[in-house]
Amino acid sequence: MITERTIKTDKIYQGKIINLRVDTVELPDKKYSKREIVEHPGAVAIVPITNNNKIIMVKQYRKPVEETLLEVPAGKLEINEEPIECAKRELLEETGYKSEDLEYILSFYTSPGFSNESISIYTARNLVKDIAQPDEDEYIEIQEYEIDELIKMIQEGNIKDAKTIISILSVKNYAKLY
Amino acid sequence: MITERTIKTDKIYQGKIINLRVDTVELPDKKYSKREIVEHPGAVAIVPITNNNKIIMVKQYRKPVEETLLEVPAGKLEINEEPIECAKRELLEETGYKSEDLEYILSFYTSPGFSNESISIYTARNLVKDIAQPDEDEYIEIQEYEIDELIKMIQEGNIKDAKTIISILSVKNYAKLY
Repeated sequence: MITERTIKTDKIYQGKIINLRVDTVELPDKKYSKREIVEHPGAVAIVPITNNNKIIMVKQYRKPVEETLLEVPAGKLEINEEPIECAKRELLEETGYKSEDLEYILSFYTSPGFSNESISIYTARNLVKDIAQPDEDEYIEIQEYEIDELIKMIQEGNIKDAKTIISILSVKNYAKLY
Repeated sequence: MITERTIKTDKIYQGKIINLRVDTVELPDKKYSKREIVEHPGAVAIVPITNNNKIIMVKQYRKPVEETLLEVPAGKLEINEEPIECAKRELLEETGYKSEDLEYILSFYTSPGFSNESISIYTARNLVKDIAQPDEDEYIEIQEYEIDELIKMIQEGNIKDAKTIISILSVKNYAKLY
């Protein structure tokens, strides 16, 4: 199998959420090429399903795209944090619901051409109301939807976030809830 | 509607594929925060469908995740390039097939929390065999699959790339081909 051996690594930036490095790699024909790589700690996305089968979504402004997006709740892994614990924590922080009934659906790479970011998706059921605790730089609005509304919004271009599209379509196709 | 006003922009890195900048933004409570933003030119993904209803996939090594991934053909927009022209070009370069029968499916942001990368998905039919012309640092293997095999591979965790998962699930759910 083809791989790309790292000849040299240049660390460009160490940030709050991401790091940037540029690797010089050796290709199969022995030529060299550069790979720009955004390092990310990984994240989880949660599909919170209420007792009457609605999905709890969050709306928030996303500076990189200068748009307010409708998304499933999600958040970055903390150091040494298990994805399922991260899912419980982010569910509570962003929506104010607790759940001990999480089910793993799948994981994916958001953009493996330039980043190692991986997101694991969980459903969360038997939700218990508690108090939301958003991060101090997060402004989040909560909304509930039927899954078929969300499926239609994806088709119409009104849901644009990859993790949300994958979460909704995979719950529809794989989770056998609906 | 809440937005985040840019107070200052620091350009960290200008690369071959991505740029990195850090924006200082003003939040609704007038506090400041930093946003790390990876600028990307945007890309297309193509779902090439053969006359006997198979989907042409590409396998390639992805340095950021240190894995060989099975993906739909895809590529970055060149300067001033229309997405549909980019889709035709990348289809030919990566698979060796030409098509004038492209259909737009949907667009999405790969990771809007830190990047503006947007990918537009097209199906391509009535494929005509020509000669593949991969970029000089691309090593690509071509494989054909039934869509239901791909749907199963997503569920089993054997397809991990976001644009590929969205392409296959959205063609299955929306393109009315199958």
